[in-house]
Amino acid sequence: MALAVSPLAPTSFPTLPAIKGVRIASHAAGIRYKERTDVFLAELAPSTTVGGVLTQSLTAGAPVEICRTHLKKGRARVLVVNSGNSNTFTGRKGAAVVEATVNAAAQAFSCAPDEVFISSTGVIGEPPPMDKLVDAVPAAQAKLSDDAWADAAAAIMTTDTFPKVATRTAKIDGVTVTLNGICKGSGMIAPDMATMLAYIFTDAVLSAPVVQALLSAAANKSFNCVTVDGDTSTSDTTLMFATGQAAHRLIAAPTDPRLRDFAEKLDDLAIDLAKQLARDGEGATKFVEIRLKGAADNKAARRIAMSIANSPLVKTAIAGEDANWGRIVMAVGKAGERASRDKLSIAVGGVVIAKNGEPVEGYDETPVVTHMKGREILIDVDVGIGIGVATVWTCDLTHGYIDINGSYRT
Amino acid sequence: MALAVSPLAPTSFPTLPAIKGVRIASHAAGIRYKERTDVFLAELAPSTTVGGVLTQSLTAGAPVEICRTHLKKGRARVLVVNSGNSNTFTGRKGAAVVEATVNAAAQAFSCAPDEVFISSTGVIGEPPPMDKLVDAVPAAQAKLSDDAWADAAAAIMTTDTFPKVATRTAKIDGVTVTLNGICKGSGMIAPDMATMLAYIFTDAVLSAPVVQALLSAAANKSFNCVTVDGDTSTSDTTLMFATGQAAHRLIAAPTDPRLRDFAEKLDDLAIDLAKQLARDGEGATKFVEIRLKGAADNKAARRIAMSIANSPLVKTAIAGEDANWGRIVMAVGKAGERASRDKLSIAVGGVVIAKNGEPVEGYDETPVVTHMKGREILIDVDVGIGIGVATVWTCDLTHGYIDINGSYRT
Repeated sequence: MALAVSPLAPTSFPTLPAIKGVRIASHAAGIRYKERTDVFLAELAPSTTVGGVLTQSLTAGAPVEICRTHLKKGRARVLVVNSGNSNTFTGRKGAAVVEATVNAAAQAFSCAPDEVFISSTGVIGEPPPMDKLVDAVPAAQAKLSDDAWADAAAAIMTTDTFPKVATRTAKIDGVTVTLNGICKGSGMIAPDMATMLAYIFTDAVLSAPVVQALLSAAANKSFNCVTVDGDTSTSDTTLMFATGQAAHRLIAAPTDPRLRDFAEKLDDLAIDLAKQLARDGEGATKFVEIRLKGAADNKAARRIAMSIANSPLVKTAIAGEDANWGRIVMAVGKAGERASRDKLSIAVGGVVIAKNGEPVEGYDETPVVTHMKGREILIDVDVGIGIGVATVWTCDLTHGYIDINGSYRT
Repeated sequence: MALAVSPLAPTSFPTLPAIKGVRIASHAAGIRYKERTDVFLAELAPSTTVGGVLTQSLTAGAPVEICRTHLKKGRARVLVVNSGNSNTFTGRKGAAVVEATVNAAAQAFSCAPDEVFISSTGVIGEPPPMDKLVDAVPAAQAKLSDDAWADAAAAIMTTDTFPKVATRTAKIDGVTVTLNGICKGSGMIAPDMATMLAYIFTDAVLSAPVVQALLSAAANKSFNCVTVDGDTSTSDTTLMFATGQAAHRLIAAPTDPRLRDFAEKLDDLAIDLAKQLARDGEGATKFVEIRLKGAADNKAARRIAMSIANSPLVKTAIAGEDANWGRIVMAVGKAGERASRDKLSIAVGGVVIAKNGEPVEGYDETPVVTHMKGREILIDVDVGIGIGVATVWTCDLTHGYIDINGSYRT
């Protein structure tokens, strides 16, 4: 099925610069798709440290398991990502494919097997073609370059309608470092301490524990705050690689104050990528930001915001351009977190339409109607209990979602 | 919006017999709908005991709150139910409407106010018209009869496409007693220790604690095992009234062995009604039964089964007649309960298509394809951990759901 580009796609994409210590390539291995690339390979300098945030799914795939194991060492030389087949629920065959790919990469790049990271995304339950994946490693190796980032982001797409990229610079000790990020994801998006596939590269000089701490914090504010359909993937993987090629001195402690600007820019980049996921939600016609305050704590706020963001009734109302705040009340009520029914306030597009547990009589409906007809929907909810806050992003639920997912395998 | 009757509707409905001690009526109060009834009134004999299971929503409506309070006494004389307006998130105005309706009923039937039970279903956040509701009490009282059950079930419908009724008989001490049940619900169906609106009437002679214990047990096996969209209503209410008019001696202890047949028939009736909810799920074209086994315990089994039943990806695949068991794996993995990825087995329509964590090679696809084209879908999942079991019911997710919910208020 050829999908039209999401109407919510960014109107322009940044050109990602080269990052010292990273060489990348994409390749058409013919795993499932025809006439497009489906393998992304990254070669990382020997000084590279790595951190990762992986799916909490109990049916995670073999590639996720190998990442979890290799993250213990915290060093990376090669990343191999394929689209078209998630290598999940594939038993020993799937594990054998991962092992063969790891060994092929370790041999091709003369590194230890536990410095190789693997991700796979696509259909669940079909053993991937081992030879195509193994052969793809030297084939992609021959094409390595410094700056083919847009091609890389395109190679990892499945039902995505646009490649997702972002870049930032930050200062560490007065030295400018660069962060590049790419990700994919459109359906089965409800990351649980992780996302679909996202890779962040930087030339900063950071110990592995620092990379891990920064990435975990950023994922918590970005990928973990986005949902398309409430379905958590078996393959969610976020990895951050720091090649250590910048001119500043090593930062070895997550609490080092020199990290402030970098952490801020990393959060910003991760949020940029996360929003792109929601903007490419399957069948999406509206991008929705939900700002929740007044919860018992931030975690409670996120759970309530996610309950709203995942409610099919809220999402179909938004698709129908209906500011049906009664369904928001319902979603607050079912979230299982403390909320004061009689202090609850809701604003849509900045207009308060319910306050202190009652509809606001005679509020001006015109700007709300106009807002609902737009492509960017803003919902503010105050549950009136405490100081917990959260912002999450999602999209509407449309006929397009059903079209895409009623025929994904045919 | 006029809705076509669900293709999953039962082909015939039982005629419900009169129950000693229950007189019922329906009435067109014009609360929201035109040219149809929207009030259901039941008068109960002075000997009537009552038990209830109510929504766990933290934004429950005023009618739910009054039921919770009145259930403490355990006696009932009048039930007043309206459709068209849920009287939820209506603040002091809504509470005043409930109070006025309770007082009107207490006066009309010469009973204590805490023997009156109220339910409301429909739009959230609009104060209901007090005069129409209060006036409906004597108007409906004038129409009371013994056997207008189908009319009663029709009066409480919202987006339902058919009235939902069921009847059973049971023996207590050799005496035949009757159970009648009616319910409504089509969207916002994910009961949490409760259901949408369901009312069960019997002439059995039971203490209020017995009624409560039996109803709680039955709800757990029926209404709490059905989901349409994972959205828990603010108004879910199940009440059971026992008029005490049958000729057997009072049963005062939930553990009395004379209850065995009655409890069995009650469970069966509640399951019958619960399945009718799924069969009338908004936009449903397929009825889905999910049988889960091998979980750590029954509660874990239900959570995993519900995770499958609520997954939009599973539900759209079923709508597309695709036995996409990979999405079932995903839904098991995200449920947050223990499951053995490498022992997981899945059967569709009785055909095992995945076993011990791998697809079954060369299984006969033909009967599976045929099964998926049918209206009744059966999914068996074994998660390979323990002896916990659960059966839940749901429906597919189709364009119809989005049509209905994108325009509910227009």
